Amino acid sequence: MPYYRPMSPELKTDRTRVRRQPARGHYGAKEVYAILDEALICHVGFVQDGQPFVIPTIHARLDDTLYVHGSAGSRLIQVAASGAPLCVTATLLDGLVLARSVFNHSMNYRSAVVIGRGRAVADPDEKLRALRAVSEHVVPGRWNDARQPSAKELEATGLAALRIAEASAKVRSGPPEDDEEDLALKVWAGVLPLHLEPGEAVSDPGLAPAIELPSYLKAWRR
Amino acid sequence: MPYYRPMSPELKTDRTRVRRQPARGHYGAKEVYAILDEALICHVGFVQDGQPFVIPTIHARLDDTLYVHGSAGSRLIQVAASGAPLCVTATLLDGLVLARSVFNHSMNYRSAVVIGRGRAVADPDEKLRALRAVSEHVVPGRWNDARQPSAKELEATGLAALRIAEASAKVRSGPPEDDEEDLALKVWAGVLPLHLEPGEAVSDPGLAPAIELPSYLKAWRR
Repeated sequence: MPYYRPMSPELKTDRTRVRRQPARGHYGAKEVYAILDEALICHVGFVQDGQPFVIPTIHARLDDTLYVHGSAGSRLIQVAASGAPLCVTATLLDGLVLARSVFNHSMNYRSAVVIGRGRAVADPDEKLRALRAVSEHVVPGRWNDARQPSAKELEATGLAALRIAEASAKVRSGPPEDDEEDLALKVWAGVLPLHLEPGEAVSDPGLAPAIELPSYLKAWRR
Repeated sequence: MPYYRPMSPELKTDRTRVRRQPARGHYGAKEVYAILDEALICHVGFVQDGQPFVIPTIHARLDDTLYVHGSAGSRLIQVAASGAPLCVTATLLDGLVLARSVFNHSMNYRSAVVIGRGRAVADPDEKLRALRAVSEHVVPGRWNDARQPSAKELEATGLAALRIAEASAKVRSGPPEDDEEDLALKVWAGVLPLHLEPGEAVSDPGLAPAIELPSYLKAWRR
């Protein structure tokens, strides 16, 4: 019972083909984009001296370009911008799946894996567009409210870009799938849904009391 | 304002030294373990033909061993068990940090990065212990309630082990850090806390009505 219906297999290659549970694999841009757009963070994989590193960071998507954000001097951005092979993975956890047997336990999730080679984002106009996309990706409405970056701040911001040309989505949803012979066991089975929930906003200790919580933050949901 | 006080630098090497915002880096086993133990999923990085891959999966820790779970035939487990270099990263997102300037926006998070070489878990006793740890890691109390794995199921379960000897934790917490000259701006600043919340449990459609939700699930929190 896939969460999405598969679309065109445009992002499928032998490197992004889902091998385990192939019915859970999807390769349409729509499915991959939806996961990248909902996830607040991604995990970027890169290789240095044969050793893989996986670093969490913030991203945003504009059309078929995935932007990865960091400090200009960070290893992540330097490697990502160098043209080295990358893997960017975003995962949304939707629930714990409790089967009658330990073996059939699972999780409901949606994950997107994008591979390719990154490039530096050096042009100030593209940098500003990408930074705005990152800001609006995390908190829609914030960009026009906060003080926008100065030229010096733009320079200190690191951004790498990756074209979303080779990717896959993997999705599990729905109830547990127990073996026929386990169905009569007197064990509770089902799904415990999980959701990332915002708590009550905590004002900065130095905030002037007259400044109220903006409506886009009151309405923030994921 | 680090979330934890740094302990002994026992897991620090040049490869795991936090380069950006070094004050956020911690290298004690206690800090690294706490993040691994709270995270429901991790992202495993491995290299194939020079290309990094980052795959989400479930893990558990027993003392200084990190177990990564999957299907026995999966690429992830096959590579992880082969002795190839791995990176296992677990990230907990604690909040959105909204500064008065776009540039100083951030997130509150705790992440742990473990690198090393994996090994296969072949011994059935260790496999059972590790599987129990994975089950109890996700839902404490579930192992003794559900049907435990058969010999055949144990064989189909893939587990790789990684000794936690080279690792780091990176933690950001607390309010935004605005530049002095931005403090008078009329922009709301502060933190929007985020938390993974369980929703109402959804019983399996085939569940006998007499079977009630177990207390360990009613009490489930992260």
